[in-house]
Amino acid sequence: MTAKNAFYAQSGGVTAVINASACGVIETARQHPDQIANVYAGRHGIIGALTEDLIDTSQESAADIAALRHTPSGAFGSCRYKLKSLEANQREYARLIEVFRAHDIGYFFYNGGGDSADTCYKISQLSETMGFPVQAIHIPKTVDNDLPITDNCPGFGSVAKYIATSALEASFDVRSMAKTSTKLFVLEVMGRHAGWIAAAGGLIEDHDMPVLVLFPEIEFDQERFMAAVKERVEQHDFCTVIVSEGAKYPDGRFLAEQGTRDAFGHAQLGGAAPVMANLVKEALGYKFHWAVADYLQRAARHLASKTDVEQAYAMGKAGVEFALQGHNAIMPTVRRVSDTPYRWEVGEAPLSEVANVEKFMPREFITADGLRITDACKTYLYPLIQGEDYPPFANGLPKYVTLKNQAVEKKLPPFEL
Amino acid sequence: MTAKNAFYAQSGGVTAVINASACGVIETARQHPDQIANVYAGRHGIIGALTEDLIDTSQESAADIAALRHTPSGAFGSCRYKLKSLEANQREYARLIEVFRAHDIGYFFYNGGGDSADTCYKISQLSETMGFPVQAIHIPKTVDNDLPITDNCPGFGSVAKYIATSALEASFDVRSMAKTSTKLFVLEVMGRHAGWIAAAGGLIEDHDMPVLVLFPEIEFDQERFMAAVKERVEQHDFCTVIVSEGAKYPDGRFLAEQGTRDAFGHAQLGGAAPVMANLVKEALGYKFHWAVADYLQRAARHLASKTDVEQAYAMGKAGVEFALQGHNAIMPTVRRVSDTPYRWEVGEAPLSEVANVEKFMPREFITADGLRITDACKTYLYPLIQGEDYPPFANGLPKYVTLKNQAVEKKLPPFEL
Repeated sequence: MTAKNAFYAQSGGVTAVINASACGVIETARQHPDQIANVYAGRHGIIGALTEDLIDTSQESAADIAALRHTPSGAFGSCRYKLKSLEANQREYARLIEVFRAHDIGYFFYNGGGDSADTCYKISQLSETMGFPVQAIHIPKTVDNDLPITDNCPGFGSVAKYIATSALEASFDVRSMAKTSTKLFVLEVMGRHAGWIAAAGGLIEDHDMPVLVLFPEIEFDQERFMAAVKERVEQHDFCTVIVSEGAKYPDGRFLAEQGTRDAFGHAQLGGAAPVMANLVKEALGYKFHWAVADYLQRAARHLASKTDVEQAYAMGKAGVEFALQGHNAIMPTVRRVSDTPYRWEVGEAPLSEVANVEKFMPREFITADGLRITDACKTYLYPLIQGEDYPPFANGLPKYVTLKNQAVEKKLPPFEL
Repeated sequence: MTAKNAFYAQSGGVTAVINASACGVIETARQHPDQIANVYAGRHGIIGALTEDLIDTSQESAADIAALRHTPSGAFGSCRYKLKSLEANQREYARLIEVFRAHDIGYFFYNGGGDSADTCYKISQLSETMGFPVQAIHIPKTVDNDLPITDNCPGFGSVAKYIATSALEASFDVRSMAKTSTKLFVLEVMGRHAGWIAAAGGLIEDHDMPVLVLFPEIEFDQERFMAAVKERVEQHDFCTVIVSEGAKYPDGRFLAEQGTRDAFGHAQLGGAAPVMANLVKEALGYKFHWAVADYLQRAARHLASKTDVEQAYAMGKAGVEFALQGHNAIMPTVRRVSDTPYRWEVGEAPLSEVANVEKFMPREFITADGLRITDACKTYLYPLIQGEDYPPFANGLPKYVTLKNQAVEKKLPPFEL
């Protein structure tokens, strides 16, 4: 068997540990030079494949590839670009085959979330649909934790650890100030459709912090929410609220979409946090502070979960091993073996069952009043935030790697996206 | 000499390391039982003294006091409460003396910023003005870094490290996404009058990140700023902006005060970050993300600067030692001996020169265009963020201490604030 090249690309929103998966893919591929000659990375995800903008990862030192394990973001660039169906856009698939053929690519590793799983699934079918043999493996990645089948998604554990830690620290702060100042702290977190990240903030009630969570899965009940805030402030002198960016009114409007206008009539400045803080101020008169973590939460490699880093690496490694065993159209998964002590192993899911399926918070992970997490949810969450895995620091700041990212010489005419 | 009791209180906005100063005060006092019988902490700062709500720190174990060193926030509660002048409010000073006398307090340690230094200074004069002997020592604390004389303020180094790290991580993230998505990332930081915290974000240009800083000290020049953003996006594909909450238009309005209204006509939802992001979007059309770190930045003990923790502890320790040497009306300071290698020692400043003086960024720390920091500023900042001092973690989250905070029995009639 002649060695083929592998293509690897990062897709969608990046995370603190997607590069750990890249590290797993490249280090494992390098151990099998008889089967994988080289790993070409797509510059800016699938766009790199379409435009023949390939990065020659063999130019990167072993030390730099190892440093990917502790470097957040997407080292090769990511993109938000979804391939249409084969019928709707055969031109793009034909181009991919042209590029794969020109660069002798036999393995396709795509590192992303739900949309990417769909793209990867389409590519896995190219052998059948367009007669080009390629093994396509999806490496799971998403802070939103909304991929099906896998127990959890690499990227999520680290955001969960960051949000729970930040909510805990801010709650300590507010508690100190509540006597004469702030009584309400609102933290907005990511999660447009699924409330997994918001749920992590709910863990701080185990540290005696009064906390309420607004999930996208639960319609916002203003009256019940205000009563719950009031009760906590009366009992504890303060309240912390974790609001998901995707939290919604019963009519489907996002909380963030209050029709906010600036003096010039321009729409939508604020996020859900300022809107919520102002709503409470109006109803109950409490002085507030709010924070919007945004990219800080998903890029916070300095506070990554060790479990998450290990799983991210393992998914990359397993992807390559499955490919070398001849598998196609699959995604490695995290399979939970036991909660206490936490044990997990690598599983495998067919992409046909992964693509376009979103996993939401089960209702039994949320209390009856819709404002807290249950013990079942905590049992699920705690293992995922276990352990610290600090990056090296130099001169006071984390030492993250920026790769050389040298382009592979092009062999084809340009392609218009 | 008979041992007297000491009073210790935390004032104003809390920090990641103000409890390290408390630890320094209490541990050092415990080493001198012949001179300091006990340390009574004010519950909620000076309010605790006025209402005779004193906490008996002798009830706390040595382990719990030691754990203050790695616990953010104010363990005894803080407050925003400024004593008026002696002429305007003699009643409060008379009450303080009454409480001090009832509890045999001979030492007053006040841990705060500029306003607190003023309060502490007034109390240091009680011996002269009202015939009650008390030694008052101010322990410096403020994330804003705006106290005079001391080279820097405990609390600042840790925020600086957090903001520089977060800006670096988010810039890695944006760089990954810039091809098809976000090109502008705006991070809002604290600093109503002084731009020290914003300046720390400027350090990431040493990691090849295109970053612009909006300081409160520099009038916002919209045209120049937009040109600078455009130049960076054209060269690097993205730009990171650090905006201080105190950044202002030439007419003195805060950037955050855009007259923002929601659909109901309610004012001011957003902060400076969303306002700035929208301004750029309007002028240049770039897709943006923004974050407001708020309390997260000053509570982030998980990423404290080791230098900062050591200095915070040293200031508390020195405060007690100065008191035992008979000093009054002073503040221990950090005196920088050399930049490279960084060396510092404990100094001392008279409160008469500290109270009500604010230290702004020197103009030579900001580039001529007003949008970046200079090498001189970097030379000042880097030593302050050196070293990591991680708290212990348990079950995935930092293990911070909550003290018992048992009240000392009251001996006086109540007092109305």
